Amino acid sequence: MSKEQRARTDALLRRPPPEGPQSVAAIRAGFEALMSGMIVPDTVRTTPTTLGGRPALQVEPDGSPRTGTILYFHGGGWVFGSPGTALSLTGNLVARTGVRSYSLDYRLAPEHPFPAAIEDTLNAYRALLDSGADPSTVAFAGDSAGGGLAVTTCLAARDAGLPTPAAIVAFSPGLDATHSGESMDTKAGADPIFTRERLRHTGAMYLAGADPHQPLLSPAVLADLTGFPPMLLQAGANEVLLDDAVRTAARARAAGVDVILDITADVPHVFQSFAGVLDEADRALDRAALFLSQHLRAPGGSRPA
Amino acid sequence: MSKEQRARTDALLRRPPPEGPQSVAAIRAGFEALMSGMIVPDTVRTTPTTLGGRPALQVEPDGSPRTGTILYFHGGGWVFGSPGTALSLTGNLVARTGVRSYSLDYRLAPEHPFPAAIEDTLNAYRALLDSGADPSTVAFAGDSAGGGLAVTTCLAARDAGLPTPAAIVAFSPGLDATHSGESMDTKAGADPIFTRERLRHTGAMYLAGADPHQPLLSPAVLADLTGFPPMLLQAGANEVLLDDAVRTAARARAAGVDVILDITADVPHVFQSFAGVLDEADRALDRAALFLSQHLRAPGGSRPA
Repeated sequence: MSKEQRARTDALLRRPPPEGPQSVAAIRAGFEALMSGMIVPDTVRTTPTTLGGRPALQVEPDGSPRTGTILYFHGGGWVFGSPGTALSLTGNLVARTGVRSYSLDYRLAPEHPFPAAIEDTLNAYRALLDSGADPSTVAFAGDSAGGGLAVTTCLAARDAGLPTPAAIVAFSPGLDATHSGESMDTKAGADPIFTRERLRHTGAMYLAGADPHQPLLSPAVLADLTGFPPMLLQAGANEVLLDDAVRTAARARAAGVDVILDITADVPHVFQSFAGVLDEADRALDRAALFLSQHLRAPGGSRPA
Repeated sequence: MSKEQRARTDALLRRPPPEGPQSVAAIRAGFEALMSGMIVPDTVRTTPTTLGGRPALQVEPDGSPRTGTILYFHGGGWVFGSPGTALSLTGNLVARTGVRSYSLDYRLAPEHPFPAAIEDTLNAYRALLDSGADPSTVAFAGDSAGGGLAVTTCLAARDAGLPTPAAIVAFSPGLDATHSGESMDTKAGADPIFTRERLRHTGAMYLAGADPHQPLLSPAVLADLTGFPPMLLQAGANEVLLDDAVRTAARARAAGVDVILDITADVPHVFQSFAGVLDEADRALDRAALFLSQHLRAPGGSRPA
């Protein structure tokens, strides 16, 4: 049953890509259309708000939320996507944990290249802390480029002397702007979504000439993760970005960080978006929710419920 | 708080070892004494039984058990330990999942060297299948040497043409009789329990002259894990056996297996034994229980509850 689900998910994504590089507008519209088909739990409420000077979507569970905040960063290659396109993921984490989330509408390339996105995500975290949030009650989470931001925002926070959050959850994170992972080649045929060329196309917009060999762009290759909170990195085996997660997990282990590297076979990039359709997606989200619940502290520093 | 707990656990284990190699009787008695201090959940019932011709301890949850069987293999370097010494671990898995377990008293070296243990664990699995158990309702679990057996018994079952179990959980598994992992050296100072010499001492009893370069003895280095069920490998960062789990996870990824590599910093070999004392132990067991519940199927092949 689930084997069939995995094959169906692959076939769904394996559509012939348009010839040649797409315009930014076409990429954005195509992604909006794709993600509008994902299932959002009907138990969450959304409210537009702002955080650190940027628009954000507040996503709240049914009933009164548990203590804690998930600061969520959507995917989309730093060029496309929005809190709306990631709402299935954010909503599923909120519904499963009972914790409120802010999903940030950070600035996108090519209009706003690196480091604009990280400036926005760091400002959002600062705003949460300034509003009185205890860092031990805040988790960073994100998918794809946003999974990358969950890691690099923590780097930026640590290096700015801010306290680190309580946990990081990253779904299929993009953590290497040098694209040097072996899986860039070994998974080229298995990945139904990405090729090196497609990643280069949007990646160049985000870099805008910046050297990719720096920790905030390629933490999988260059970052010292000392002092990081517990990390959960989930990825599919059918993605060229697999080694971004694998190498970041190795760096986390080397830095003395609690780290879970959670790989599901035969599924694509950010397969968790298929919650409600693909059993592996629901299971992965349940594991992510348990991880978040274990690390988001209740008031007074006592053990999470 | 938990930082203090991790330090206290380390200090507890970091006692001066006796001079020179210990006798088998002394090793067995010392381990029994150490493990008798671990906390067993008071909600589980134990009943001595036999399975596949070997003694086993049946461990059952309060109330009527959920469908499924955890076939548990205790640790102890293939030389010491018993279902009794692992009862904290087995009992915690049973209490957290509601699934019954059989913890097998497999034959030990030096009286019964390799492959006696694997003959016994495979016979036990065969006996479960012969009694009508659906393999999709059976999980293998174990710690240390028993974590190694959870993997090698699955290898042996697959190679004997038996169906594989539904899942494998291994706590700090011993998966490399060649002792070639980098962590054998890099973690030598951090590991409060093992040294290469201590592992060699009992390892030689288990090998009894056999070549360690074979998949059933060193799967982390040599095994093709194709066809394996989902695996959860948990280890502490403060153990020389860390790379046994790391390399086995890499082999599982390469073979297209769902695999979670779950590493906790600043904790020793089989830190899960400190459940009730060390927060990380309870959290790791909660993650293991969720993993087991996700993969042990309810009757009729429907989604696990």
